[in-house]
Amino acid sequence: MTQEPALRCSVEWLGDHIEVIDQTLLPEQQQYRRIDTVDGVVDAIRRMVVRGAPTIGACGAFGVVLGLQHTVSSDLPSAIASLEIVADTIVAARPTAVDLPWAVRRTAAAARSAASGKEMAARAEKEALAIQAEGRESCRLIGEYGRGELAGVTKILTHCNTGRLATSGWGTALGVVYAKATAGEPIEVLVSETRPLLQGARLTAWELSAAGIPVTLITDSMSGAAMAAGRVEAVVVGCDRVTRNGDTANKIGTYTHAVLARAHGIPFYVAGPLTTFDPDINSGAEIVIEQRPASEVLSCGGYRTAASVPVWNPAFDVTPADLITAFITDRGILRPPFVESIARVLEEVRV
Amino acid sequence: MTQEPALRCSVEWLGDHIEVIDQTLLPEQQQYRRIDTVDGVVDAIRRMVVRGAPTIGACGAFGVVLGLQHTVSSDLPSAIASLEIVADTIVAARPTAVDLPWAVRRTAAAARSAASGKEMAARAEKEALAIQAEGRESCRLIGEYGRGELAGVTKILTHCNTGRLATSGWGTALGVVYAKATAGEPIEVLVSETRPLLQGARLTAWELSAAGIPVTLITDSMSGAAMAAGRVEAVVVGCDRVTRNGDTANKIGTYTHAVLARAHGIPFYVAGPLTTFDPDINSGAEIVIEQRPASEVLSCGGYRTAASVPVWNPAFDVTPADLITAFITDRGILRPPFVESIARVLEEVRV
Repeated sequence: MTQEPALRCSVEWLGDHIEVIDQTLLPEQQQYRRIDTVDGVVDAIRRMVVRGAPTIGACGAFGVVLGLQHTVSSDLPSAIASLEIVADTIVAARPTAVDLPWAVRRTAAAARSAASGKEMAARAEKEALAIQAEGRESCRLIGEYGRGELAGVTKILTHCNTGRLATSGWGTALGVVYAKATAGEPIEVLVSETRPLLQGARLTAWELSAAGIPVTLITDSMSGAAMAAGRVEAVVVGCDRVTRNGDTANKIGTYTHAVLARAHGIPFYVAGPLTTFDPDINSGAEIVIEQRPASEVLSCGGYRTAASVPVWNPAFDVTPADLITAFITDRGILRPPFVESIARVLEEVRV
Repeated sequence: MTQEPALRCSVEWLGDHIEVIDQTLLPEQQQYRRIDTVDGVVDAIRRMVVRGAPTIGACGAFGVVLGLQHTVSSDLPSAIASLEIVADTIVAARPTAVDLPWAVRRTAAAARSAASGKEMAARAEKEALAIQAEGRESCRLIGEYGRGELAGVTKILTHCNTGRLATSGWGTALGVVYAKATAGEPIEVLVSETRPLLQGARLTAWELSAAGIPVTLITDSMSGAAMAAGRVEAVVVGCDRVTRNGDTANKIGTYTHAVLARAHGIPFYVAGPLTTFDPDINSGAEIVIEQRPASEVLSCGGYRTAASVPVWNPAFDVTPADLITAFITDRGILRPPFVESIARVLEEVRV
């Protein structure tokens, strides 16, 4: 890498409020927004001012802290009751990603362990900061494990944005890219623009380009042609929720890339921390897929793409485990059969 | 159909000039443009003011007439020399579609059969009008053959725009849709928006919706998820050039839909007139794919989608014959092995 992108953390905790970069305005405008209420957290997550599963998790965790700081009662039972409401409200902001409920529940659990209502906010704050710090280290590990797995691979296709904006560190799928670039290994990234919200074009292409990493932007529809033309040696994407059998929910369009990769004999990797693995869900059939507003498809930035017609706009799709070559996690590479490798690593973490 | 779209022909010949609807501005603005020079024809085709393989063909044919009307010399040999230059200039405007060279060469050949330089323009005009009329009848036949083939199919996915704007009639792939709707058969169309130029969103969704046909718009990346969700019973697309073995060049993204259709066991149809079949090319490997400007991917309408990064922007991709269930042509349904069925029907036409 010749240059680091000049970015603060996508979610910063400043003692009594959160500061986030408004990802809906990037890259044209770099605007930071102050969030000092639970409602503000929910709104930022829902409108995707903050996005990326781990970033949403961190933001939600700090939202719990905000909620507790604003709880007037120092009475423990009523503070806990209020905490539950706050946690449920934040978790409901986006239903598909698992990092959000995981980080919120963990922060809430830490708060509940406090001896008094007053102490709860401090406990939650410590936990939320720990979640963020662990997220950073997870990214580093994912990058290094991915670098080992993808030794010799130069041409990577990625989808959506899984880098510095989406995580507390240098990213998951993009963490692998940064790890390779930092180690001086040759790397070229084909970025699919990721309609409707263009996270690939607006965020990934911009972020990698700012870091001096060779990038080529394509529309989502071009990935098949790019694979047929020999422009892709591996696909690496992030994940929003991985089930016990390895079925993976990720940004809409991921499944399309996975089917194409299989048809071209190209390995398809999913990169993410273990916090994205959901031990409570057996398969993709059980994942709730968030439907987003029609307006996202009917427009592109400020441009109106179509007349008022009905739209289908799922935020995510599910890639079945059998299309996935391996998971690149902060606990190493998980290979098929995933039911076993995922169970084993989740067991190790629990112990 | 409850309602016909209020549209003139996408290319109208008015005796001494062409009038076209500017397809780059639809559906927001319905602006008609007067074209009265060969340069104007080339510019309109290159900038996709007129688009759709058969529409480009008709426009190119009328361009030959314009060129001849402006030829000052009534001397036959020098008029023919000038004709050759005009024809080559128009054909070079877009390299991939075969209708353009076919229609231009046919019109030029008719002109060359004239007894004098003066008579050439009249001969060319008659031929160009015949091409347009035959194009209308081709669409009707494609619609009817497709309706027979797709009896019982209700949910169709289509890509790009292949309707009234793209052809001289009601369309190729959309001709099948109109034929079904006109016959009172149930039909629902899933339209992929077709980035970068959004012909699916801007033109197809608008055109079908105006005709009272149920339409649902998706981004290109959603077709895999839509197929997995059971929302697609058949894919029907148009074509810009079909080779002797059935390999088909069509709008970028077509190949991606074809691979996905195969993976989901969904039939994949290519609809087009025989004029789109190129007997001079053996396979897709020989098709020249037009690269379009980066600015198309870096913007969406007036909205800037990405920073200045390198872009790959092929206008078309090639779907190999083995992913195609059948061709719906104006000479009936062509089935595998395509080398034989295509050769047979091209032979019939020649006889």
